[in-house]
Amino acid sequence: MTRRLMSARMVAAAIVSLAAAAPAMAQPFAKPEDAIKYRKAAFTVLARHFGVVAAMANNRLPYDAKAAAENADIANVVARLPYAGFVPGSERGGDTKADPKIWSEMPKFNAAAQKMQDEMGKLAAAAKSGNMDQLKSAVGATGAACKACHDDYRMQ
Amino acid sequence: MTRRLMSARMVAAAIVSLAAAAPAMAQPFAKPEDAIKYRKAAFTVLARHFGVVAAMANNRLPYDAKAAAENADIANVVARLPYAGFVPGSERGGDTKADPKIWSEMPKFNAAAQKMQDEMGKLAAAAKSGNMDQLKSAVGATGAACKACHDDYRMQ
Repeated sequence: MTRRLMSARMVAAAIVSLAAAAPAMAQPFAKPEDAIKYRKAAFTVLARHFGVVAAMANNRLPYDAKAAAENADIANVVARLPYAGFVPGSERGGDTKADPKIWSEMPKFNAAAQKMQDEMGKLAAAAKSGNMDQLKSAVGATGAACKACHDDYRMQ
Repeated sequence: MTRRLMSARMVAAAIVSLAAAAPAMAQPFAKPEDAIKYRKAAFTVLARHFGVVAAMANNRLPYDAKAAAENADIANVVARLPYAGFVPGSERGGDTKADPKIWSEMPKFNAAAQKMQDEMGKLAAAAKSGNMDQLKSAVGATGAACKACHDDYRMQ
């Protein structure tokens, strides 16, 4: 076993614990601007990897089964990240399109986030299946979950 | 086994294959600006998670073993991402501090990236060990690898 593979196995074990365990104590952001920058960055990375899978499902990129699976896996990990940036007090203080009502209806917002994360998990499974119908369906459901939350909570 | 844990195991298996296998075919960015935005976003997410671990190692945040391990694991995954954004033609076309010499000395740049990724892998192991001396040492080595590449390739 190479050191590189060893390291990959360690990462894998860590991701199991990341997703299966209760979240650890939240770490503060130094200022609202930092929280805003972080959550936007995480969404940018997420959009890229989901976007590659969606483009393959919709014939805008050549289908490559391995690349589709890799990008869906990365999206599935990154989908867990942005929400740590929606801390109290970060309704303003930086360049954000987040609707301030997020902070007054956080349970509903969190449910919408969870829905997207659940669909992203199914997308990763579909991408691994290599079944194009299943992939197209999962891309549609995941995209719908993204859009629902954008419609409700992202200001134009 | 809950569906949530099942999903986490699938993610874990995926991360093994992500890190152990040769990279899949690269997917194009629509325009240089998109590649620049992506790589900067990935570095922003990386800096946040490494920063939390570093702050704990340096007593700027209370030490929480579980949070340190989680943040180091996320950093170890995200450390693999930004380099896909250094595509040919993205020396300019957006707001970037990337030194154009990156594209004329890509093997040296890639080696610096690999060094950081290797140190980030060791950091994840150190964070899991719960040994504060080991964690401090790994934070120092990882931070040095970040700084070396910034000194060489990030313009002021």
